[in-house]
Amino acid sequence: MSTQIHPTSIVSKHANIGINCKVGAFTSIGDNVEIGDETEIGSYCEIGIDFGILEDKPLTIGPDSLIRSGSIFYLGSKFGKGLRTGHRVTVREGVLAGEGLQIGTLSDLQGHCTIGDYVRLHSNVHIGQKTDIGNFVWIFPYVVLTNDPHPPSGELIGCKIEDYVAIATMSTILPGSVIGRGALVGAMTLVRGSIPEDSIVIGMPGKVIGPTDKIRFKKDGKPVYPWRRHFHRGYPEEITQVWKNEFPDG
Amino acid sequence: MSTQIHPTSIVSKHANIGINCKVGAFTSIGDNVEIGDETEIGSYCEIGIDFGILEDKPLTIGPDSLIRSGSIFYLGSKFGKGLRTGHRVTVREGVLAGEGLQIGTLSDLQGHCTIGDYVRLHSNVHIGQKTDIGNFVWIFPYVVLTNDPHPPSGELIGCKIEDYVAIATMSTILPGSVIGRGALVGAMTLVRGSIPEDSIVIGMPGKVIGPTDKIRFKKDGKPVYPWRRHFHRGYPEEITQVWKNEFPDG
Amino acid sequence: MSTQIHPTSIVSKHANIGINCKVGAFTSIGDNVEIGDETEIGSYCEIGIDFGILEDKPLTIGPDSLIRSGSIFYLGSKFGKGLRTGHRVTVREGVLAGEGLQIGTLSDLQGHCTIGDYVRLHSNVHIGQKTDIGNFVWIFPYVVLTNDPHPPSGELIGCKIEDYVAIATMSTILPGSVIGRGALVGAMTLVRGSIPEDSIVIGMPGKVIGPTDKIRFKKDGKPVYPWRRHFHRGYPEEITQVWKNEFPDG
Repeated sequence: MSTQIHPTSIVSKHANIGINCKVGAFTSIGDNVEIGDETEIGSYCEIGIDFGILEDKPLTIGPDSLIRSGSIFYLGSKFGKGLRTGHRVTVREGVLAGEGLQIGTLSDLQGHCTIGDYVRLHSNVHIGQKTDIGNFVWIFPYVVLTNDPHPPSGELIGCKIEDYVAIATMSTILPGSVIGRGALVGAMTLVRGSIPEDSIVIGMPGKVIGPTDKIRFKKDGKPVYPWRRHFHRGYPEEITQVWKNEFPDG
Repeated sequence: MSTQIHPTSIVSKHANIGINCKVGAFTSIGDNVEIGDETEIGSYCEIGIDFGILEDKPLTIGPDSLIRSGSIFYLGSKFGKGLRTGHRVTVREGVLAGEGLQIGTLSDLQGHCTIGDYVRLHSNVHIGQKTDIGNFVWIFPYVVLTNDPHPPSGELIGCKIEDYVAIATMSTILPGSVIGRGALVGAMTLVRGSIPEDSIVIGMPGKVIGPTDKIRFKKDGKPVYPWRRHFHRGYPEEITQVWKNEFPDG
Repeated sequence: MSTQIHPTSIVSKHANIGINCKVGAFTSIGDNVEIGDETEIGSYCEIGIDFGILEDKPLTIGPDSLIRSGSIFYLGSKFGKGLRTGHRVTVREGVLAGEGLQIGTLSDLQGHCTIGDYVRLHSNVHIGQKTDIGNFVWIFPYVVLTNDPHPPSGELIGCKIEDYVAIATMSTILPGSVIGRGALVGAMTLVRGSIPEDSIVIGMPGKVIGPTDKIRFKKDGKPVYPWRRHFHRGYPEEITQVWKNEFPDG
């Protein structure tokens, strides 16, 4: 099987599309785009938007990726293998992301941010510029990561989200916040400042109410966090094996 | 008048489209889709998306429906007559919905949920999997119904929203919550647990502050709730007649 | 250079498009649309939607505008020069807006509202009908301006947002609120009632915690607000000159 490009799509001769790829109907792919092998791009996407100043900055999508329909990617970003998006995501320039990133439907990455490996953004997540996200982070629907400490101002101070953090639905993270490794942000929480590792923060304004290890499953009393103890769905075998060795009793 | 399909649209020969329908420009309709009579589908829609495991599960849209432009429906859901959507809604597989459902612009139904008759979802509402919504429910903009009690986990515990409930803007409903018939959730409320019938819940965390019948119109002192006392716009005559008989003084 | 219309776009013969304009791929422009000179309309837009009752109400887009891809405008609204939108905005009928309006990606204007000059709406802002927004207002992501005091009801009481107000991320403004000139609404605030000029309101429910002039830049101790003291990016020279004269020490 070779690459299939729908006849209604508009693909630049200067785009570099790998083997065994698929491009859907009514999709536009511009110059200076590199799409890795075995990647599927849905219908109604715009891949490689340039607003005149990005022309020498490629957009690179790693192999084995899936970009669902209606999604928009600007030039000037780079994604590792196995990117998966929902529908109608918007990704501005200057994103540097690792492997296995998931971006949910309608999520909006404002660009100029770094994202580690196997990060999962659910639907309608908003990532401000200058955000720094580690590895294995989860961000749930309608979470906003902000960056302007004095809106509106010219200052931009991004948030730092460390490895294994989970941020629940509808939370807002204020500029310059640092959420420590493994911390849990409860739903509808307003986070400001530094949150210690493996701690729970909830409320408005957010308060640290204790360590995550006090949260237990009802069924067996085992700790819920770190979530990598028990939640392995969709991660590569070589990663989940490390987690299983780290927590042999799950 | 017979069915009009815009020449730029891509409609499967295996789709079953009723009489007097209209399909807009640049719209895609896949196999195994059934569209009822007198239905209009706007431009830029994708109707009947299959990601490889849904092929034998039809998408059924009842007659007299209106799907506005840019909307996405997966295979494997069923909607009664009179469905109306805003623009760019996303509807995943496994939705079983009654008559007269309204889905506002940008709303995101994650699938695998049940929805009764004459439910109205305003703009940008997010419905998690396993949600169970009754009849005549109203959900206002930016409300999220969640389902994961320990994010991220494999457990999914949907919310139950009973008949005539109204959930105001920007509220988050935590997994497993049950909102009793006729209850009112105030704007920006975080709901957890069971909310009694005909009660008002507000705040973060949400607290029940009394029965809905203490809310009165300023103009005449009559009770505002149950809202079916006075609000009848857009419901069928046979339904509003029942409501008028139930509340003869409005 | 004359106007360039992409061959895949569908432009009504009855649309009136100015000189040196550009219309992207797969875009639809209907009857009774007036587009000013030097305006660019991206791909996948629907400009001039009519649902049968707007046919004699034109949509007017001022010159020097930029409508990014996937945006939807109904007939029956008017925008001054220099409109700029993000991607996939939705603008219903009855919007009367001044010059230099910015509407961020995914924002949703429900129509029947007035907006002054140089208003900036960031991503995913929701403006209910009957809203009245002054000049030089900033509204940040995921803010909702509501209008129904007794949801659901037939009453609609819009919010009034006066000149120079800044409303931070994820706030909800309740029906009939009046936010005074120069006030600052903190992130995740629920506003009800009248907020005095140049005051700060934060929290849930929102409380006025003092005047904005108590907020100072760390670097030099100068007041942050009114923000026009120091923030001038993207405003016309004749406006920023007035601000510089008003605050000669920045």
